[in-house]
Amino acid sequence: MLAVGVKPIIILVETQLPENLGSVARVMANFGLSKLRLVKPQAQPLDPKAIALSVGAFDILDDVIITENFEEAVADLNYVFATTAYQRDMIKAYETPKTFVDLIKKPEFQEERFGIVFGPERTGLTNDYMARCHKAITIPVNPDFSSLNLAQAVSVIAYEWFQSQSSQALKACIQLGKTTLATQGQMNGFLNLLEKNLDQTNFWRVSTKKPIMWRNLQNLFTRLDLTQQDLKTLCGVVDALSKSLDKKPD
Amino acid sequence: MLAVGVKPIIILVETQLPENLGSVARVMANFGLSKLRLVKPQAQPLDPKAIALSVGAFDILDDVIITENFEEAVADLNYVFATTAYQRDMIKAYETPKTFVDLIKKPEFQEERFGIVFGPERTGLTNDYMARCHKAITIPVNPDFSSLNLAQAVSVIAYEWFQSQSSQALKACIQLGKTTLATQGQMNGFLNLLEKNLDQTNFWRVSTKKPIMWRNLQNLFTRLDLTQQDLKTLCGVVDALSKSLDKKPD
Repeated sequence: MLAVGVKPIIILVETQLPENLGSVARVMANFGLSKLRLVKPQAQPLDPKAIALSVGAFDILDDVIITENFEEAVADLNYVFATTAYQRDMIKAYETPKTFVDLIKKPEFQEERFGIVFGPERTGLTNDYMARCHKAITIPVNPDFSSLNLAQAVSVIAYEWFQSQSSQALKACIQLGKTTLATQGQMNGFLNLLEKNLDQTNFWRVSTKKPIMWRNLQNLFTRLDLTQQDLKTLCGVVDALSKSLDKKPD
Repeated sequence: MLAVGVKPIIILVETQLPENLGSVARVMANFGLSKLRLVKPQAQPLDPKAIALSVGAFDILDDVIITENFEEAVADLNYVFATTAYQRDMIKAYETPKTFVDLIKKPEFQEERFGIVFGPERTGLTNDYMARCHKAITIPVNPDFSSLNLAQAVSVIAYEWFQSQSSQALKACIQLGKTTLATQGQMNGFLNLLEKNLDQTNFWRVSTKKPIMWRNLQNLFTRLDLTQQDLKTLCGVVDALSKSLDKKPD
């Protein structure tokens, strides 16, 4: 499923919380990444809190490379992307996660080793670190609430990378025309009417079979994209059928 | 920046950890969402751990709607998406976050109120909950490590939604032709040579100005996408210039 492209290396600078090391390792594993490097970490990768939050991505924490300076951490890489919550007063190309993924798909990147650098939780990367990176990636967020958790930032970029490497089949949507979908309240009204009336018949036959039969029936109606008019019609059908039942002699 | 479309409502079912409630609130705020509903929560939204991890998204936790059953939580919605890590043995349309976003951009969804439902951390949504949702969203992950943290799952879907509502300018990439980018090790070699030689001249003039001047110089070279041959050339230039300095009479 994965294309031939090179996997990005995640580089965390001066990370403060062991929980974040664990969460980053977990989400890296979720999205098929495995190489983690730490520059001057304030938290230790084998801290019990890191291991607990990695939820099984222990190998990533165990294989981590720790360096005392940034230059050493990136010496073997051809290309280094900084991440930042905001654009600095510094000449630099800023990519979104989507344009980053488009960029690294280009032929000239197919053979390159590249890293993505994330700064400390409280401050992000200093301009000194930024100056040593080729380009920056900024995740577009709500400008009124732009402080993204470290593991969430890794998550979004790793997710985009993984998507770009996977072939995802697109699903078709059902055309509704000009009608309006029913609300779930209307759907519940219909389902309750249906259940009540079915209870009065021999529909379930064996009462132990009702839960699974009823779940299947609910699923059947719920996935039909029924409109408000559809539901009115169906309620009418159920009503009519039940009244005819009432009138039947025993 | 935001289009007219309706914001999805996030619905968490039987969430176990207060930390996850806080992290979900934070990432909702990051990506412009604000309406949170909890069905039979095992953790409380105003638990100190939830508030701490919300990092300022207190309003979302404070405005949360809590219900004892799922039907009540979705009664006013027209459309409900389940989220699941894997496809169930149940007839249901499965969307990726990207096809979900494509779907809700269609005209018939512009007026609809819709919710996205996330199950408990350990088990995900039961099939009984799944049966009450119109469609499902599955985030494609590494099949060997598919257990995505609750807040990360919300993050990825909220991120895709926010992207779909924002107009993002695409950045152009620099064409490199058939040359190879230098490694950061080679770049560091060049920068060290440059700094050493500049130290021997009066280039910085005032020593207190060096840090900012040097940062700007590093940034200038780093963002040029220099090739290995470029760096060899530049090292030669620096070498040649410094030798001519050596030979100059004082």
